[in-house]
Order: sequence, then C-alpha cells, then structure tokens
Amino acid sequence: MDPLRLGDLHGSLTDPVLAAMEFLNEIANRYPDAVSFAPGRPYEEFFDVQDLHRYLRAFHRYLLDEAGMDPDQARRTLFQYGRTKGVIHELIARNLAVDEGIQADPESIVVTVGCQEAMLLVLRALRSDPRDVVLSVSPVYVGLTGAARLVDMPVLPVRDGQAGIDLADLVARVRQARTDGLRPRALYVAPDFANPSGATMDVPLRRELLRVAEREDLLLLEDNPYRLFGSTDDRLPTLKALDDGGRVVYLGSYAKTGFPGARIGYVLADQPVDLGDSRTGPLADQLSRLKSMVTVNTPPVSQAMIGGLLLEHGFDLAKANLREIEVYRRNRQQVFDGLAARLPDAARLGVSWNSPSGGFFIVVSVPFPVDDALLELSAREHGVLWTPMHHFYGDGVPLPHLRLSISLLTSEQVELGLDRLTAFISQRIQTGLT
Amino acid sequence: MDPLRLGDLHGSLTDPVLAAMEFLNEIANRYPDAVSFAPGRPYEEFFDVQDLHRYLRAFHRYLLDEAGMDPDQARRTLFQYGRTKGVIHELIARNLAVDEGIQADPESIVVTVGCQEAMLLVLRALRSDPRDVVLSVSPVYVGLTGAARLVDMPVLPVRDGQAGIDLADLVARVRQARTDGLRPRALYVAPDFANPSGATMDVPLRRELLRVAEREDLLLLEDNPYRLFGSTDDRLPTLKALDDGGRVVYLGSYAKTGFPGARIGYVLADQPVDLGDSRTGPLADQLSRLKSMVTVNTPPVSQAMIGGLLLEHGFDLAKANLREIEVYRRNRQQVFDGLAARLPDAARLGVSWNSPSGGFFIVVSVPFPVDDALLELSAREHGVLWTPMHHFYGDGVPLPHLRLSISLLTSEQVELGLDRLTAFISQRIQTGLT
Repeated sequence: MDPLRLGDLHGSLTDPVLAAMEFLNEIANRYPDAVSFAPGRPYEEFFDVQDLHRYLRAFHRYLLDEAGMDPDQARRTLFQYGRTKGVIHELIARNLAVDEGIQADPESIVVTVGCQEAMLLVLRALRSDPRDVVLSVSPVYVGLTGAARLVDMPVLPVRDGQAGIDLADLVARVRQARTDGLRPRALYVAPDFANPSGATMDVPLRRELLRVAEREDLLLLEDNPYRLFGSTDDRLPTLKALDDGGRVVYLGSYAKTGFPGARIGYVLADQPVDLGDSRTGPLADQLSRLKSMVTVNTPPVSQAMIGGLLLEHGFDLAKANLREIEVYRRNRQQVFDGLAARLPDAARLGVSWNSPSGGFFIVVSVPFPVDDALLELSAREHGVLWTPMHHFYGDGVPLPHLRLSISLLTSEQVELGLDRLTAFISQRIQTGLT
Repeated sequence: MDPLRLGDLHGSLTDPVLAAMEFLNEIANRYPDAVSFAPGRPYEEFFDVQDLHRYLRAFHRYLLDEAGMDPDQARRTLFQYGRTKGVIHELIARNLAVDEGIQADPESIVVTVGCQEAMLLVLRALRSDPRDVVLSVSPVYVGLTGAARLVDMPVLPVRDGQAGIDLADLVARVRQARTDGLRPRALYVAPDFANPSGATMDVPLRRELLRVAEREDLLLLEDNPYRLFGSTDDRLPTLKALDDGGRVVYLGSYAKTGFPGARIGYVLADQPVDLGDSRTGPLADQLSRLKSMVTVNTPPVSQAMIGGLLLEHGFDLAKANLREIEVYRRNRQQVFDGLAARLPDAARLGVSWNSPSGGFFIVVSVPFPVDDALLELSAREHGVLWTPMHHFYGDGVPLPHLRLSISLLTSEQVELGLDRLTAFISQRIQTGLT
C-alpha cells in the first residue's frame, strides 16, 4: 500500500510539543557521555531487583492476612482481570492519610497506569463538548499538555508569577474564555516544587486559589509528585488537604516516591456526580468507566509492587525516601554553591538562578535566548545537557532560561556537570560580547 | 460544590454499551453462587504465585545474559522510565515467528497495557477528522466499541454472515460511507473463534478479504486472542501471515495465552508513514508517540512477567497452553454433548447452537427474544448466568441468542450449569406456550 500520510493521522502527532520532547530524548541518546541535568528521573542507585520479589511477597501476604482472602482469591487477584478502580486503593488511602493528611474514601480512588493515565481520564471526562477547555499555569509539565492534545482539549495558559500562580491573571483568563463562548472546566496546578519552575505556593495563596476556584466554578487538578522531596520540617498542606469545598481532584504518582517502572499513579476524585433518580456517585466511578476503555485495569502485578512497598514502610513514603531526600537536598545545595563559586560575578554577567527548597528542578537565567541549537552546542562542545525552558511553554519561542534537574546525578557528576555548564555559559557570554 | 452533571461529562459515559457492560458485571456480583457461562476469562486453576517470581527472574537473567546488559542497565530497565515501545519487543517478535509464522520487525511492535490500549492507540491515530470512521463485523467485542467511543469515532457495522464476514455487505457499507462524505479508515476483524460469535473465516475468505481491503483502500485491524485455543493440527494462517499488501495491523494479547493480570498486549504496525523529506517510518512509531500521552510506558515489571513466560516456554505459547487447550476442548465438547443429551427435541423446540472448533464462545439460539430481564430471571430462579447476544450489537434490541463462555468452568460446573441452563430454556418455552 502507499505510505500513510502524517497529516491523515491525529493532529497531536504533528504538535510541536511532541516533536520537542522527542528532540530532547534524541539528543540525550546522541551524547551518552554528556553529564545530563535533563531527565526528571528519580535517583536510581538504591534500586535492588530483590526488592521486587519482596514487595510482591508482602502484597500477597497482605491479601491473605489482612484483606481476608483465601489462597484462590489472592491468586486470582494477581493473575486475573480485576477491579477497574484497582486493588491497592485501601493502601493508597492509608498512604494519603500518613503522608498528606488527606482522609480519602478508598472508593473515590482510581489506580492508574502512571499519573499520565490519571490526567488523560480526568481530561477525557471533562472534555464533553468543543467548548470545554482546561487552564494551566505556564510553564507546565508536558504530560498535561500531551493528555489534553490527545482529547483535543485546548490548554489556556495562566501566568505563574514568582509565587506559583498569578490569581488576577487566572480570573481574567477564565472570564475572557467565558466571553469567548468557552467553558473553562478546570485548572491544572502543581503547588510544590513545580516541574519545571521549582515554584512553591505559600499557604495563603493556596487558600486564596481555593476561594477563586469556588467563585469561578473551576475544578482544581492538583499534581504533586515532588512534595515529599523538601525539608521534612516545613511541608505545606496540599490543596486537597485544605479543600473544604470539594474542588480538588488529586492526581497522584508513585513514580518518584516509589519507582517509575511500576507505572502506578492514581486519581482521588470524590466530587459527586448526579446520576439521575436522585442518585449520586463519586467522579472516580465515571473515571473508572473511562478507564475500562483505555487499559481495562492497571496491572495487578504492578500494583502489587507499590502495595508491597507501602506495606513495608508503614505507608510512610517520606520515611521510605530518607536517603533519596538527602541526595536531592545535597545535589540542590551543591548546584547553588557550585554555581556561586564558579560564577562569582554572576549578577554583573546577568546570570541568576532560583533556589527551590525541594524537588528536582532549578531554573538558571542567562543573558541570551536559549534554543535547541544551543542545547546541541552545549552537548557537543561542552558535554553537558539540560532542558531549554521554552519547551514548557509550547509556543517554541526561545527564552533566556534553562532547567536543571538534579535528581539522577551523583555528587561527582554534579561537580563535573557544573564545570561544563559554567564553561558553556561563560563562553556564550564571551561570544555575545565579541 | 454542586454535583457535576453526567451530561456535562464525555458522551461515552452515557453510551448504552457502557451501561450494558456494567449491568453484566453487576448481576454477576449479585448472584455469586450462580454457575457463570458469562465471563471471557481464561481458566485459572493452573495459576501459581511462584510463577511470577520465576518469570521475573527469567527475564532479569535474559537482560544480563542475552540482551547484553550490565547489572545497572538491567536494574534500570526494570525500575526506571523506559522505552515507550516497550522492552519485550524482541521476545514478542520471536513468539510471533513460532506461534503465528509472522516475521515481524521488533521495531514495528508497540507493547501496550492490554490489547485495549493497542486498540485505543490505533483508533486515536486514525481518527484525525470527524469524517473518519471504522468498520467492524457485527456482533463485535465491546472493547473495540469502547475504544472507538473514547475517541468519538463512529463504528459502522458489517454483517458477519455464517462465514465470519459478508464481503458484499462490507463493500456496500464502505461505498455508502464514502457517498455520505465519510472516510472509512479500517475494518476491525477477529478471524478465529471470534468473540462473541465463535465464527472462524476459512482461508479463501481471508484471501478475498485482503483483496477487498486492497481494492477499497482499508486497513485491517486483526484481533486474534483465541487462535491457539483450537485443534493443534488445523490452525489457519492469520490475516497478517497472508498479508502481502501490508494492509494488516495486528493487535496482540497475552491475556488469554499468558495471564490477564499482566495486562500485556501489543500492536504490530509495520505500515510506512510518510514523514516528509523523503523519510518514512513504521506506523508503530506514531502509535508510540500517542502512547507517550496515554500511559508513557507499559510497566516493565509487568512486561517482565510475559517476557519470562515466553522465555521459559521457548516462545511457544501453544505448547505452554497444552493443559488449557485441553480444558477448553473438553468444556466445549461437554456443552455440545450436554445440550444434545438434555434437549433431545431441540430442533422441534426451535433451540440450536453453533459448534466452534476452538475458542471460548458458543452461541445458543432460542425461540424467544433474550433481554436483560430474562438474564436476571435466569440468575435468580435458575442460578445460571450467560450473556444476551444483543449486547454485542450495541443497539439494545433483544435477539433470540445468548452467548456461553466455557473458559472458566470446571467439568463439574459445566454439568451443573447445563442442568440449570436447559431447565431455564425449557421453562421459558413452556411459559411461552401456555
């Protein structure tokens, strides 16, 4: 047959966001010896294949001893088709209570194949009409943009400001959208150590955001995968924990606090849906119905891995990640100190960086626009990779900012990477001056 | 906040297909002691939790010994984010060669979270425009209908006839659709022991279907999860194996030949896509890009289970399933013989059944329309469950046919179930006569 034409396939496949992500992967493959501040992957030195066997055994024991199953039921839970909403919902609810102070009804939780499927389900549910749109702080995690593209749902950007979100801009955007005949359904937001900005909202801003959501009749889609990776003393409450009005749909991920290869995420969606005949049920039930058309169930063998991990650590993933939290703290500090030491005249040169107290990401601002060609040059001539910030805005316009991810590197790699990064930056500034 | 209205959520959530499936699940839960000829689940008596550990170890050893990874790479493959197209593609290609005689380029395979995600990816790719439609033999597996609803893609029904598909009707439907301004993109088809009809296409019909697809410029989406569950001597070639023109996208599932809890499916899509600049790449690459927005990757721990199983059985799942194949053969024969023995005057009563030589499903025709109320009565008064055939047509019109699935029952359960089923049928006929 004749080749298919890309233009005859779904529009998301020609979206610049997708091409951008692929360029970033491709360049990382092309320069395998570069020090990479690019991927937002968790630290991997502590992974041990024996853990997988132990987690599986722990979950199996839980099914027998705690969940009250006989051996046939337990075996069936692991091998057969199962509950669409998942089989570790009770365990996730206990984890939410311990780590987030959230009291969740397990029946309002849908276990998903990574947080990506959770985002897709929520946006698929909300996109019922061509007028339906979602808002998002810009810059934004590309997974959200991707899920929206897949269901043909426009994403309207909201300015982040320095504090994490500019509420005046949010209100203006929502009202303008309504004037334009659109239906703003929800705002996607990452309140703690956001990807890519590193920004964290303070508590008064969180409370005010909840009030705005109430007033403007918006759902808030809270994505919070980095929250535990800050100081253990000053963790702020999630939006969901502060949510008196039932406005927050909580998107969960165990990719960073557990491990990415389990591909376990979830969505806590306890909003009532009117089913007619005076009956209501949680939004989670509708997401589950959509899930039956996407992946049927999340693999129970994979749920068992995260279930076992939660059981092993008494549902306290902050404690389970003590070593990782220390690595991330050390790496962040090393970057802050290392940049200051290597660029003593940063201010004069027009170079600066933010100082998030947690998470994986640091944004460096430089006195020149940062495009993909510059990333390629940095990789080729300096052996260091990072991410141009413009990729998180989706409009392709180069910005004078780059994102560093510190999560995957050893201390030695951070030092070497900083040598190379600052050499690159200094040379670009020199080149610009001559 | 006020309850959300179901009508403000995606249209698939008010689709009768979804409600029908839920009714079937719900009734099974309400009558747990009924003998159930309803679920299309594989036989589960041979599952053993120790297998999971062994599969995982076998796959890990393969990464080290055969795939040439060092221990860090192998660990990373199991724990980290990974290749979007999957990590068992080489193993699946070897399985396709052994079991199906298909020579597949591993780069044209995308490993998916069950066959459901594979169907969703293909339909999402093909639905680029409101004019795009997919055709399907009717009656059809509800998973296909669900995936189509999720991407708002109409499914045009094609008559199945007795042979598996009525090609004259196919051509007429395609031409009518074009006349109506639609773009028929593909035909979904299950050539062997189809769910729910049990029909199998003979080889001349397969060849003719390929010619029609070529002439009418259609892709064929071949779904073939039951093929190995027939006689080992007379297995027919898949459409993909006969496919000279590159028309067949092959949808694969290990839910029946492996186990459902792994949730591992795949799609083999080797059709070239024109990428511009005289470059082409397989359709699989585009499906992979869509997958990055749906589930990111299929859980590697779950891929490891099927990878280990394939390795353990030398890629020969027909051999790995010898015991299951015998159970299914025995159960089918027991139903044929048991119905004949219990209904010696079946012909006179207007009762008949087909006699598939493989697969999970048998269709029983009765001299009265079969609706959901009758299923409820059968469950309540006779303690036996089955599936009204009308659910696979999607129009809600009761038909005088019911589907029996024989896959999950022991020999004793089949006997008891047949006693109850024939009592139910006889009583309905009596009731109709008085």
